[in-house]
Amino acid sequence: MVYLDYAATTPITDQALLTYQQIAKDYYGNASSLHDIGGQAKDILEQARQIIAGPLHADPREIIFTNGGTESNVLAIDTLLRSSSISGKKHIISTEMEHSSLLFYLEHLNQLPGYEVTFLPGEKEGQIDINALKQAIRPNTCLISIQHVNSETGVIQPLAEIGQCIKDKGIAFHSDIVQSFGKIDVTRLLSFVDCMSMSSHKIHGPKGVGAVYFSKKLTLKPHPIKTNHEFGLRPGTVNVPAIAAFAAATSEIFTDRQAKEEHLHYIRDLFINRIEQENIPLKLINTDYQSPTIAGCFNPLVQGDYVMLEYNRRDIHLSTGTACSSNQQKIPASIQPFMADQEEGKRFNRFSFSHTTTAQEVEEFIAVSKQIFSKMKGEKKKYEQKVNG
Amino acid sequence: MVYLDYAATTPITDQALLTYQQIAKDYYGNASSLHDIGGQAKDILEQARQIIAGPLHADPREIIFTNGGTESNVLAIDTLLRSSSISGKKHIISTEMEHSSLLFYLEHLNQLPGYEVTFLPGEKEGQIDINALKQAIRPNTCLISIQHVNSETGVIQPLAEIGQCIKDKGIAFHSDIVQSFGKIDVTRLLSFVDCMSMSSHKIHGPKGVGAVYFSKKLTLKPHPIKTNHEFGLRPGTVNVPAIAAFAAATSEIFTDRQAKEEHLHYIRDLFINRIEQENIPLKLINTDYQSPTIAGCFNPLVQGDYVMLEYNRRDIHLSTGTACSSNQQKIPASIQPFMADQEEGKRFNRFSFSHTTTAQEVEEFIAVSKQIFSKMKGEKKKYEQKVNG
Repeated sequence: MVYLDYAATTPITDQALLTYQQIAKDYYGNASSLHDIGGQAKDILEQARQIIAGPLHADPREIIFTNGGTESNVLAIDTLLRSSSISGKKHIISTEMEHSSLLFYLEHLNQLPGYEVTFLPGEKEGQIDINALKQAIRPNTCLISIQHVNSETGVIQPLAEIGQCIKDKGIAFHSDIVQSFGKIDVTRLLSFVDCMSMSSHKIHGPKGVGAVYFSKKLTLKPHPIKTNHEFGLRPGTVNVPAIAAFAAATSEIFTDRQAKEEHLHYIRDLFINRIEQENIPLKLINTDYQSPTIAGCFNPLVQGDYVMLEYNRRDIHLSTGTACSSNQQKIPASIQPFMADQEEGKRFNRFSFSHTTTAQEVEEFIAVSKQIFSKMKGEKKKYEQKVNG
Repeated sequence: MVYLDYAATTPITDQALLTYQQIAKDYYGNASSLHDIGGQAKDILEQARQIIAGPLHADPREIIFTNGGTESNVLAIDTLLRSSSISGKKHIISTEMEHSSLLFYLEHLNQLPGYEVTFLPGEKEGQIDINALKQAIRPNTCLISIQHVNSETGVIQPLAEIGQCIKDKGIAFHSDIVQSFGKIDVTRLLSFVDCMSMSSHKIHGPKGVGAVYFSKKLTLKPHPIKTNHEFGLRPGTVNVPAIAAFAAATSEIFTDRQAKEEHLHYIRDLFINRIEQENIPLKLINTDYQSPTIAGCFNPLVQGDYVMLEYNRRDIHLSTGTACSSNQQKIPASIQPFMADQEEGKRFNRFSFSHTTTAQEVEEFIAVSKQIFSKMKGEKKKYEQKVNG
């Protein structure tokens, strides 16, 4: 079995799972209970907060735990909008390439009275055009939300430049860093980003837990559900075992992080070179601003879902886009700058890697790819009938 | 150590924890991924859905998984309101005694343009007055949300009568059954309730997971964040390991459930009788509509938080109200029908039991109570100074 869908989710590490077990068993208290059983859980919670804050160079009090990436994105946007509501500003700038959780939420806001959202497209190399961003800023712009690494292409957005653009304009800057936290360098982000969303299960931690960084420079209004959890910003019993396991996974992935990133570069380069050497008909999205975790590819033959199924039959697991919008036929905006036409857009697949991916796995992928594409060339007509019928 | 705060949270069972471990390790796929690794996770998810539906006599497709009780309540209300929005009806009826997650959310809605919420008080025996409910219903009432078991007093609300009241009136009926699911009989609720919220960590399952039952009779509008997760009603990667562990805990707690409830009655009766026999100055809230899981008590001496701390020092753990609103000084509305005056209201503590609570633990509680109350009688002045200083 070769798993190449780490951008969708990752297996939990032994250490994270052990932490989950231990904390669930020994520190089961409600972190808001005032007795010692609650207090012990609260101590674990605060240690975890410190661990997550570490690699961002943040203050632990700037970290709020959530139930995952989607809630992190929605909580971030809602909290920032609620907090800026006094100003009366209601214009938001984002991109067409955000993760579906954010994109659809912003589209929803865009339909509510008052709010207006500008969605910037991906331009050259899949990045937004900084001049287009500058032109989109209005006197009533209150929030910019732009992802760090795209989940389909691995394109890195120029967050530093964007931050520079809006400096001292009173605009809050949120970034979805779910695909970069623990994978590429995030240590300097907080010098220009005010708010960031993270998810545990993308870095070999448990599912059902995530975090938001809110800069202490922000003045935040509490959650409408008055709560004493998470500094009043997020209601609901705090999931201490999962949070502690998320912290354990964070500690692990940030240990020798640079070496892990180098290994990812080595794997992705090997993936590209071997495809080329073996004449496998996969056209790669490869930019100058590229995370080594993701390889987006077009094939000249059939729709991405058939490719995925052929690999699946041979126990190799990849995807057609993000899992959260699978079953939806729309071509993701993130790949539009790279595709020749709509038809090519449908022939897209995403391969994604972990620091645990091996050269041996790449070779297995290559061997299977040779089989699959030679079979598909012979049977192109059959697939075309499927697609059109 | 004696833990008497099971209404706040419960320790996870070995079986639920083992299930979590196994599923997290072996079925780590994203349930929305179309390859087999995702498909296997999806199979586990659907099995869990069936297990949760079982004791409610619901259809598995009527169960939606969430990250816990708070999200279940908010998701239930939001989904029902969104779905009834076509009708233009915007009046909601609830009670003053709901869990803070629901109460504060409804108070928030009450401040938004259009919505109006009537909060019914607890009357005789802590239940709402059915006639008051009938009078509160207006032509534009779209939703009634009334809890099954109160988390501070254990009072059971007359859901069947309430259901009868609103039958054929086109009003959706939601109930927060977090404190009753797995504890008292819930098998007939779905014949008069349209929507119910549940939480895993209240029944010895993992934290960070819950569920909502939505009757298939309801026509539901999808979540504004278009999603293929959870029938389009809830976005975010589905937390399959926690859901499977929630299902394991559900299977366990519903095995010989009636015997477990009888044991709870035995424990609560013992608790009451021993308090009386030993002249411990705790005045119990005991009604004709009473869950055996909870004993709310007033003492004649000092504020509830001092009582809690005294017990805590002796390794007995109880609470002053719900953990989710601890630190908040307000006297919960649920205890108001039972308190002589505001001062007595502050001298409240909640003891809550599990089917795992033993007679031995009750005896330990009694022994410590004798010490504490004799000490507190002697030092009443000291506490009064603390309170007033």
